[in-house]
Amino acid sequence: MSRFWTAIVNTLDPYVPGEQPKDNNLIKLNTNENPYGPSPRVLEVLHHNVNDTLRLYPDPNTTALKSAIADYYHLAANQVFTGNGSDEVLAHIFQGLLNHDAPLLYPDITYSFYPVYCGLYNIKSDAIALNKSFNIEISDYNRPNGGIILPNPNAPTGLILPLSAIETLLINNPDSVLVVDEAYIDFGGETATPLIARYDNLLVVQTLSKSRALAGLRVGFAMGHPDLIEGLERVKNSFNSYPLDRLAISGAVQALKDNDYFNNCCAKIITSREYVSKELTAMGFEVLPSKANFVFVRHPHHDAANVFIKLRENNIIVRHFNHPRINQFLRISIGTQQDCETLVSSIRHIISQN
Amino acid sequence: MSRFWTAIVNTLDPYVPGEQPKDNNLIKLNTNENPYGPSPRVLEVLHHNVNDTLRLYPDPNTTALKSAIADYYHLAANQVFTGNGSDEVLAHIFQGLLNHDAPLLYPDITYSFYPVYCGLYNIKSDAIALNKSFNIEISDYNRPNGGIILPNPNAPTGLILPLSAIETLLINNPDSVLVVDEAYIDFGGETATPLIARYDNLLVVQTLSKSRALAGLRVGFAMGHPDLIEGLERVKNSFNSYPLDRLAISGAVQALKDNDYFNNCCAKIITSREYVSKELTAMGFEVLPSKANFVFVRHPHHDAANVFIKLRENNIIVRHFNHPRINQFLRISIGTQQDCETLVSSIRHIISQN
Repeated sequence: MSRFWTAIVNTLDPYVPGEQPKDNNLIKLNTNENPYGPSPRVLEVLHHNVNDTLRLYPDPNTTALKSAIADYYHLAANQVFTGNGSDEVLAHIFQGLLNHDAPLLYPDITYSFYPVYCGLYNIKSDAIALNKSFNIEISDYNRPNGGIILPNPNAPTGLILPLSAIETLLINNPDSVLVVDEAYIDFGGETATPLIARYDNLLVVQTLSKSRALAGLRVGFAMGHPDLIEGLERVKNSFNSYPLDRLAISGAVQALKDNDYFNNCCAKIITSREYVSKELTAMGFEVLPSKANFVFVRHPHHDAANVFIKLRENNIIVRHFNHPRINQFLRISIGTQQDCETLVSSIRHIISQN
Repeated sequence: MSRFWTAIVNTLDPYVPGEQPKDNNLIKLNTNENPYGPSPRVLEVLHHNVNDTLRLYPDPNTTALKSAIADYYHLAANQVFTGNGSDEVLAHIFQGLLNHDAPLLYPDITYSFYPVYCGLYNIKSDAIALNKSFNIEISDYNRPNGGIILPNPNAPTGLILPLSAIETLLINNPDSVLVVDEAYIDFGGETATPLIARYDNLLVVQTLSKSRALAGLRVGFAMGHPDLIEGLERVKNSFNSYPLDRLAISGAVQALKDNDYFNNCCAKIITSREYVSKELTAMGFEVLPSKANFVFVRHPHHDAANVFIKLRENNIIVRHFNHPRINQFLRISIGTQQDCETLVSSIRHIISQN
């Protein structure tokens, strides 16, 4: 608190990201990073670009990256917006497209940065409760709104809405933007990008932090009708001309081109996710059916906070949320198959002791 | 224009950065980049960190970088805020510290991003005219205000205020924040950082884009009282947890440690600036006495826009602003000594022909 702070600063309740421990001996299953590292082609181009050209500003329009994304999704470059991680992209979306008279709608259990953005930009919002099985009920979104945002798959549940449900939301809300946050779409979900051609109110957000294994390079993007993209460009160019550095741009371009490596990593993570799901189910856990690179699990007889602490004692770090509806769940990122086997045997040991 | 845009988007007048031409054969003297490239130690650490750890998120608190900056300026780490270039840092400052009932004050001729931020955050502001010799008259800032921001040296004039004038502004405005934007301070100016210990209303902003030759890596920072820094952290953590990527953090740390390289580059640029100033003065140009890595010049008999075009025809790109008070000036970044000699002989040829 300071007399110099603006009014909004006093009201903020900032986002708290998952811990980034300095201890490298931990099995880190708490922030949904990719266990396999970026494509060798990414590392190669980064080495190539570590040189004197770093004295020069990057391309403020990230032309090469927009073009690579557009090629991958069969879009035009003016249907693509890029930013410093999907968090920055989301921030611009909230300020530029989601602040209207009617409230913004999002699920009550979802990415916990959404209410933070609402606070930052003074946006009215309503959290719509997930149903009892933690699914999004799209009929609950039939109410006046200034926009709808939801992750698909949802986080931290991992549950996915079918494309038909996304399309129903688009049809039911022709005058507000539907933002589909597809941070985890590449682990078995079906992207909504093919609907962009038919719905001018759809914006799809993705990130290179998960499936492309580049959390350390900070690249996210949004795809939608050129008018939506233009609105975001106007906000971005009133905030920071160059949010993506030269290395991030060039690495991201290569990541989007090495599809064999990408597909192979995603397939391995899906296989390990199914292994973890099956093993934890066999131990009596309820495992929500995940299409993400994490599982969201609870046990009827073992307190989640307690299992969390015990895992940490065994050098395994997972995520526990203190929200009342989900405080008996743990969110566990999918690591390498070896990480997953260590996790499973550690959990088996913990619950056998209590 | 789109029915989906929020009200603010329609009113924005985004910043337009200097051109980043794709043609590498140009002598690029238009965006104040450093001609000498980053320290070899920076390139070395970047190569070292291009590896599988890019799959992991960066440190959201940039502890190592804050510590390196604090060491350099004899501050504590909680007196330092970091961001994705000083433009992002400035954006957070405008939103978090400069939006009050009374208008923000800044010079009429200054960094043209300031009014853009005011538009983005709906901040009242008054532009205070520079005097006839293009200097900031600090007595003109004795009026009710919600904050003062000025670059020192000012851009695009290159003119500097002495530290005594900065201190007078701090004393005269104890209840509003004075932001001193020191993007160009390392080319012969005196930093205001020693005043931080005595004035809780001082915030000093710097960048690694100019003197540290890392425009391509996007790193800026602010220094001030811990309460001011805490306000900025609250805004940043409500916007984007990780604006600095792993490579940017590690490269910036090394850049702040290699002071021999840094001092040597700055000295060479200052020498070349004095050479350009002397030669252009001899040709009849008015050259404002610059403490930056650029000069701001006009000729009584040669139209600036015309010289700009002729230079471009000779593959030299400089900056021309269409603001009425300064549309007879050119802003010329200081390149290598060879760049500067080519520039001087090119200008000599152009004005001899008209």
